[in-house]
Amino acid sequence: MPTLDVFFEFASTYSYPATSRVEALCAEAGIAMRWRPFLLGPIFRDQGWNDSPFNVYPVKGQYMWRDMERICGKLDLPLQRPSQFPRNGLLAARVACAVAAEPWCGDFVRAMYRANFAEDRDIARPEVVGAVLEALGQKSEPILERAGTQETKDRLRLETDEAVRLGVFGAPSFVVDGELFWGNDRLEDALAWARRC
Amino acid sequence: MPTLDVFFEFASTYSYPATSRVEALCAEAGIAMRWRPFLLGPIFRDQGWNDSPFNVYPVKGQYMWRDMERICGKLDLPLQRPSQFPRNGLLAARVACAVAAEPWCGDFVRAMYRANFAEDRDIARPEVVGAVLEALGQKSEPILERAGTQETKDRLRLETDEAVRLGVFGAPSFVVDGELFWGNDRLEDALAWARRC
Repeated sequence: MPTLDVFFEFASTYSYPATSRVEALCAEAGIAMRWRPFLLGPIFRDQGWNDSPFNVYPVKGQYMWRDMERICGKLDLPLQRPSQFPRNGLLAARVACAVAAEPWCGDFVRAMYRANFAEDRDIARPEVVGAVLEALGQKSEPILERAGTQETKDRLRLETDEAVRLGVFGAPSFVVDGELFWGNDRLEDALAWARRC
Repeated sequence: MPTLDVFFEFASTYSYPATSRVEALCAEAGIAMRWRPFLLGPIFRDQGWNDSPFNVYPVKGQYMWRDMERICGKLDLPLQRPSQFPRNGLLAARVACAVAAEPWCGDFVRAMYRANFAEDRDIARPEVVGAVLEALGQKSEPILERAGTQETKDRLRLETDEAVRLGVFGAPSFVVDGELFWGNDRLEDALAWARRC
């Protein structure tokens, strides 16, 4: 059975419900998964946007927040519209890169999304990322240091390049055996695809 | 129980699977529905696009066609990527406006989508729209004439204005009791909303 690659970006709203569900669903189905943090910024800039498309197109943004309310309501996931959107997820993404192989990476990913979309905390700030790590029982200092190394920076850049190569243009995206699925609402299809492979 | 308003545009790919399903699903659930043809062109122009966003953003377009293959495959709906995209759905939309109250309106809508997305016929041409009407056992001439009247033109313009007022920015969109749902993949949510109302 192939691996399900989960491409996510910490600023992305729909990545919040998706990352809250994907690890448990994969475990249940016996599907191996990988956390693949990447950045949407460079991809959006190539499309001519300097901001989230939900800000560039406010009518779409207004719908998205209402849609998120409905989705999170169904999942019993707390949601508080952040006072700043989008927030810069660069540091959090570098940390996710640095700890991608740790068994608690999923806990970190989910806690960062909660911080941004349920607790209205500024995930761009090292203190916030550090506090989230400490709350998970991790020593934040060496991890934040590792997140700042050239190796980690290069790795995140490579992840973004790889996402582009695979046809990713938004988040969350799931890739199974070269097949691309975009959006929280395509997660079940991606899981079904993995089962059939 | 409120009415489910189905806002659709003949050039819209995802409106094809949605319009193929919605009437039967509403009948099954005992939900009243209305066909609300509208035009995306003026809405897209307001966002700065002179073309389908799937052409403006080719990576997104490539994904959409693959996604459509998967969706139509699941629904056993024939799909042939049209040699021209998007096709001008103005005449078909005017006809849909003119016959919106007829019991066979759904048959007309579905047959037009099949013509465009399964049979690669140019739905912008009056001969094609006329042939679809005749195949449904209708006399095409008086209907095409009615589609060209100022009254019908104004009605379609009002439908588009009303769609914008309701927050519609893409197709298909469903509106139930003021609540907006966007996309074929939100049809089940819209039906559930109607049932709860």
